[in-house]
Amino acid sequence: MKDFFLQKHKDAHCRARTGELHLSHGTVQTPSFMPVGTNGTVKGMYHSTVKDIGYNLILGNTYHLYLRPGCEVLQLFDGLHKFSNWDGNILTDSGGFQIFSWSKLRKIYDEGIKFQSHIDGSRHEFTPEKVVDIQQVIGSDIAMVLDICSPPGIDRRKTIKAMDITHAWAERSIARRDSLEELTGRAFRGKLFGIVQGGFYEDLRIQSARTISAMDFPGIAIGGLSVGESKEDFIKYLAITAEEVTYAKPRYVMGIGTVDYILEAVSNGIDLFDCVLATREARHGTVFTDDGMLNLKRASNRLNDGPIDEGCTCTACSKYSRAYMHHLFKCNEMLGGMLASEHNLTYLYNLMLRVRKAIEEDRFLSFKEDYLARFYADGGLNRK
Amino acid sequence: MKDFFLQKHKDAHCRARTGELHLSHGTVQTPSFMPVGTNGTVKGMYHSTVKDIGYNLILGNTYHLYLRPGCEVLQLFDGLHKFSNWDGNILTDSGGFQIFSWSKLRKIYDEGIKFQSHIDGSRHEFTPEKVVDIQQVIGSDIAMVLDICSPPGIDRRKTIKAMDITHAWAERSIARRDSLEELTGRAFRGKLFGIVQGGFYEDLRIQSARTISAMDFPGIAIGGLSVGESKEDFIKYLAITAEEVTYAKPRYVMGIGTVDYILEAVSNGIDLFDCVLATREARHGTVFTDDGMLNLKRASNRLNDGPIDEGCTCTACSKYSRAYMHHLFKCNEMLGGMLASEHNLTYLYNLMLRVRKAIEEDRFLSFKEDYLARFYADGGLNRK
Repeated sequence: MKDFFLQKHKDAHCRARTGELHLSHGTVQTPSFMPVGTNGTVKGMYHSTVKDIGYNLILGNTYHLYLRPGCEVLQLFDGLHKFSNWDGNILTDSGGFQIFSWSKLRKIYDEGIKFQSHIDGSRHEFTPEKVVDIQQVIGSDIAMVLDICSPPGIDRRKTIKAMDITHAWAERSIARRDSLEELTGRAFRGKLFGIVQGGFYEDLRIQSARTISAMDFPGIAIGGLSVGESKEDFIKYLAITAEEVTYAKPRYVMGIGTVDYILEAVSNGIDLFDCVLATREARHGTVFTDDGMLNLKRASNRLNDGPIDEGCTCTACSKYSRAYMHHLFKCNEMLGGMLASEHNLTYLYNLMLRVRKAIEEDRFLSFKEDYLARFYADGGLNRK
Repeated sequence: MKDFFLQKHKDAHCRARTGELHLSHGTVQTPSFMPVGTNGTVKGMYHSTVKDIGYNLILGNTYHLYLRPGCEVLQLFDGLHKFSNWDGNILTDSGGFQIFSWSKLRKIYDEGIKFQSHIDGSRHEFTPEKVVDIQQVIGSDIAMVLDICSPPGIDRRKTIKAMDITHAWAERSIARRDSLEELTGRAFRGKLFGIVQGGFYEDLRIQSARTISAMDFPGIAIGGLSVGESKEDFIKYLAITAEEVTYAKPRYVMGIGTVDYILEAVSNGIDLFDCVLATREARHGTVFTDDGMLNLKRASNRLNDGPIDEGCTCTACSKYSRAYMHHLFKCNEMLGGMLASEHNLTYLYNLMLRVRKAIEEDRFLSFKEDYLARFYADGGLNRK
């Protein structure tokens, strides 16, 4: 059995590195962007298309999957892979963040979190142990511990409290993982990652990074970033945290999907990222290009017979004009979102290929600088 | 050059027949169901999937395409085929029916129809000549004349008036088609079909069928059916009209898509049908099976690990369970509509294969009887 994580090459001029994750459903090259399939489907995409692009690690969400379809259904299919007919790898977020984004009347206490379903108002409780168990039912190849996120503006006392609970829950999650075979007759099926918190306080970030790094996790996520803070704070706290998270394990920054944030993370030696942005923007007509984000609804595309992106091999770029894409979005046709989602995921997949090549050739920092200069020269994130 | 329409086999016991339409973008086997792609896209489907199922004749709509993307855009691409990257055949409805369904403040007069766009309220006018010209820009393989539909409940005087205008417009459409090369340097690219009207008056139906049949059209549509009348009236007026429409030409009944109506039409020697129902129902979770319409949202599907339809080869049936489809619809995931649309179009394509085989073997009437007995035994159209 190969090591779970193999570092292949470290860029000579920064912490960026390439590597491989060896998972139950195939090897994943890192740094890697992971498409989000919250409910067991990447929105607007056939799984076969996601696979054809090259992805073999996508996200699911424990909070959403627990509520719908629920564990009874997932057990019937022995997990999400068979239920959703996806034979690549699945990483599931624990649902801690989603409870705060989605549910009502949540209450944190030492034992766990009580919350109401955003769907029907029904009352539920997540404990660190239960979240490990649910991800065992899901059959997650990478599972995340239950944690508490502290957005910017939370005071130091509350941030410490949230961090301490997060650390205690991390220990309890490991204990549950390790006792699962004894309890249920089946060892935990995935790799359980810890999550660093600590809010926007340097010393707490460092403390959390060191604490989680010291625990028996095969990989570490940096949580609580890209949650409303300024870009300067994102860069600052990412660097502080990444510096302290063990470099020997795969490192994951949760919930980032704009190219500037991804490249910033890569230069800090981050290996995994995920975000709904690629497919959400796509459904609203905004697509990634090297020249910035492009809003296909804008009238300038109406008579444009060229593709979104000359070099792209996705269905939209190889078969259709910007004019046709514009038309589909003006008519609210599903095919617009389907094609644009495929484009954005293809774009990010290919961007990560370029990123990995640049790292292998010890030129990631100049790649990043050149890429962002072009990206921002003609629009950047402003959806021209 | 082959004849446009080749009749292959007439069932020994009814007017049902098989045939071939020879069109610019390939041969179409009849009787044939045509998927609807109003705006130049079959909703929720890649064109490649529509083609892979076996379809090579789909619908577009002149009213919708004239408003969006508009003739300027279509001219840039020399028509809808290139614009939408569909290399099969396209039939366009003239837009007469759609003006009455969609637009505001329409006014019919001898010259044409004035109407307001349902999108932005802008004022427009369709004449029979203009509708021929727009379909020339679209590049329709089969084009329809502008007509006026008389729903049930319209009095005899008004029905006669609408029919007389429809007949006059049919003549003017033919004249326009025939003078197009002289006017524009390019002959009409498609086959122009006439449309029978006459409302729900036997003698008017017969008069209209004879009048339109006598004109120089390569094919005839029966309009003004399935517009709100009872099923008994549909069957009655279909039979009366079909009896009088020339049997030598391809015959098309517009806007029918439930299996009972399709089979009724086939037994009357109808060759072509179209309807949005297959894809619209699919987007709302209802799928076709031999045992009636099935509503995937119903709780009975939640733990059902079988496919929608054992015998079906579509992506939904070959890869997914009813439980997963149920989950997708409960979560309002796009993939639900995408997969169900593919299923319904696959189902209707395969149904027409079975219909053609039954006709070739002179057993269409017993096929129809057996099929409907099973279809209605366990739900029929009631979405069980």
